Amino acid sequence: MYEMKMALSEPDIAPGAPIAALPAPALLVDRAKMDANVARMRDKLAGAGMVFRPHVKTAKAPDAIRLLFDGGTGPVTVSTLKEARLFAEAGFADILYAVGIVPARLDAVLALADSGVAMRIILDEPETAAAVAARIPAGQANLRVLAEVDCDGHRSGADPEGEALLRIGEVLAARGLFAGVMTHAGGSYQCVGAEAIAGHAERERAGLARAGERLRAAGLPCPVLSMGSTPTALFARSLAGMTELRAGVYMFQDLVMAGIGVCAPQDIALSVLCSVIGHRPSAGQIVVDAGWMALSRDRGTAAQAVDQGYGLLCGEDGAVLDDMIVVGANQEHGLVGMRDGSPVDPARFPIGARLRVLPNHACATGAQHDRYVVLDHAGCVAAVWPRFSGW
Amino acid sequence: MYEMKMALSEPDIAPGAPIAALPAPALLVDRAKMDANVARMRDKLAGAGMVFRPHVKTAKAPDAIRLLFDGGTGPVTVSTLKEARLFAEAGFADILYAVGIVPARLDAVLALADSGVAMRIILDEPETAAAVAARIPAGQANLRVLAEVDCDGHRSGADPEGEALLRIGEVLAARGLFAGVMTHAGGSYQCVGAEAIAGHAERERAGLARAGERLRAAGLPCPVLSMGSTPTALFARSLAGMTELRAGVYMFQDLVMAGIGVCAPQDIALSVLCSVIGHRPSAGQIVVDAGWMALSRDRGTAAQAVDQGYGLLCGEDGAVLDDMIVVGANQEHGLVGMRDGSPVDPARFPIGARLRVLPNHACATGAQHDRYVVLDHAGCVAAVWPRFSGW
Repeated sequence: MYEMKMALSEPDIAPGAPIAALPAPALLVDRAKMDANVARMRDKLAGAGMVFRPHVKTAKAPDAIRLLFDGGTGPVTVSTLKEARLFAEAGFADILYAVGIVPARLDAVLALADSGVAMRIILDEPETAAAVAARIPAGQANLRVLAEVDCDGHRSGADPEGEALLRIGEVLAARGLFAGVMTHAGGSYQCVGAEAIAGHAERERAGLARAGERLRAAGLPCPVLSMGSTPTALFARSLAGMTELRAGVYMFQDLVMAGIGVCAPQDIALSVLCSVIGHRPSAGQIVVDAGWMALSRDRGTAAQAVDQGYGLLCGEDGAVLDDMIVVGANQEHGLVGMRDGSPVDPARFPIGARLRVLPNHACATGAQHDRYVVLDHAGCVAAVWPRFSGW
Repeated sequence: MYEMKMALSEPDIAPGAPIAALPAPALLVDRAKMDANVARMRDKLAGAGMVFRPHVKTAKAPDAIRLLFDGGTGPVTVSTLKEARLFAEAGFADILYAVGIVPARLDAVLALADSGVAMRIILDEPETAAAVAARIPAGQANLRVLAEVDCDGHRSGADPEGEALLRIGEVLAARGLFAGVMTHAGGSYQCVGAEAIAGHAERERAGLARAGERLRAAGLPCPVLSMGSTPTALFARSLAGMTELRAGVYMFQDLVMAGIGVCAPQDIALSVLCSVIGHRPSAGQIVVDAGWMALSRDRGTAAQAVDQGYGLLCGEDGAVLDDMIVVGANQEHGLVGMRDGSPVDPARFPIGARLRVLPNHACATGAQHDRYVVLDHAGCVAAVWPRFSGW
């Protein structure tokens, strides 16, 4: 795992070091907040009798995902073959590759299946099902296929009421390859408040249940019904008929989730440490060394009721500085101002003063970094988790 | 250079391979287009008698920057200490670190200077100048300081007409550390057309010249006057009084540059190879496996006359498909539609068909990848250039 060794070989962060000794920019994980987020999902699912299959695309770090399984491994969802390969190397042996398969990628998937990993892939067109079925060798018990179902017009998936879904099931079941159905309620990210999210979760559940019902009525097996997104997983009132739940961002949370009421800004476990590098008294702003390279270009809160700019500021200790946001970003420069345009007092923030920025979108901000610096309850370095990227 | 070795260790791309054999997503460099972009800047500067100091923050790849120096090395501009370290390791021995210095970073800068690299740093406040001057050992000839000047209210820098500029010069010159002035006309990215950009370039030049004039009138030395941005470097009518020019994105170009008339979309040397993974007939769209993870979240063309979404589509051969853009992006899904909302013909783009996406912002899209796959004139792999990230 060459990517894993890379970040660890950097010698500049010592276990136990106080936050004041860390280089900036750096991607921080507040372990206490992450633990609380993980416990919240665990409580939600306790006794539901479902498989929980966290999505690793947010963290892209086996060290983070092991915490969801009490230090061990378990079933996971991935968005790239590289995630599949690196998590398989890290001992995760049950993997759902949840982006529509391209037949050209089947050899790589089969290599993982041949190595003993239970691989699940998805597709949403009968033609792809036929192409895939023709290329999976008989007797390859480690590779099964789910039909992706569209529950909310968000992106991909076959219509739960359509003929294509049944054709997919038939083509795959004829070869013993069909494992069931999955959906992702991406539209839930536009719902605001528990009531709206719960309604969307029911739409997701009902759509998937209907797909399973039609397949079974056609005499096809449908053992797996897999749904999930952080909002719908946390707010669903019923999971009846579902066998599996997926979620990714819940372990860190972010400002987009806070903006729709899934969490509070204080629950966000991920932040970017930065330094003050300048002042713009004419604009009432200060300049920090977290630009879009450290924060990402994600502006997911722009369309929400509270626009957080490129992120919400905290002190170096993590205390949220309400209404102070990154109003503009160049590559290595972040312009920090008050949300209402009133001036920031430059005397509070001399050159070299340190701050943190909470991310709009944990997946996007994480992707700008190759490691997490994990802080313990005292704000000292508990661990460094390497993070990979690429495909 | 551990980062450099990483991408090279991936075995999946063979020199001479045709584009059809490449994995996707992949970041491609069209070498013929890059060569033309490099030649254009060289022609512009021929006979100007100035130091050209390209900014490496766009490419972050020594293999790319060597092409600007006929295969050798030369003076460069960096935006992070990591760029400074890795370019120094690659033999680049004259480095301007063009983000306002934080005193906490001086030890790292001094280590580079001690190793024999001519380091230049920048700052824009007298207090920082005093803090820096106090920490640079007497006799350290490899570290000099430039005052950053604000020519257009874009971001950082001292007022060329202000007292702070003179105080900075005095504090540094008293210790023999003052090397001159620099500015970055970031506001030029909002100018449209040759006339407007040339006007902004003159504002940049005049502001910097004025700063130099005032410093010299105060009896201070000002050997370096360094200006630059891709638009102003290419369109300036006069560089009188300037000693140095900087530019970064010009070597690749991008859609933001095309949108202000700096280049045409056909000149853009950088693109993201992707595959069709789905169809959305109800929306008249197709789905590709280049989402924001491969393209970045940059929407720099959103405020321009022609909004290119998350990027403009080309065929696998690089021919621009006018008006076909990435209209939406999830992490690993790009939604492709026509700019006017008319439907894309799904029959033209079966599952597995391959396309390329031209980037809004070369720096941001590049940052999502850890290597460039360089294509020769025949569209086959000429080289793989590792690309690093981080600080």
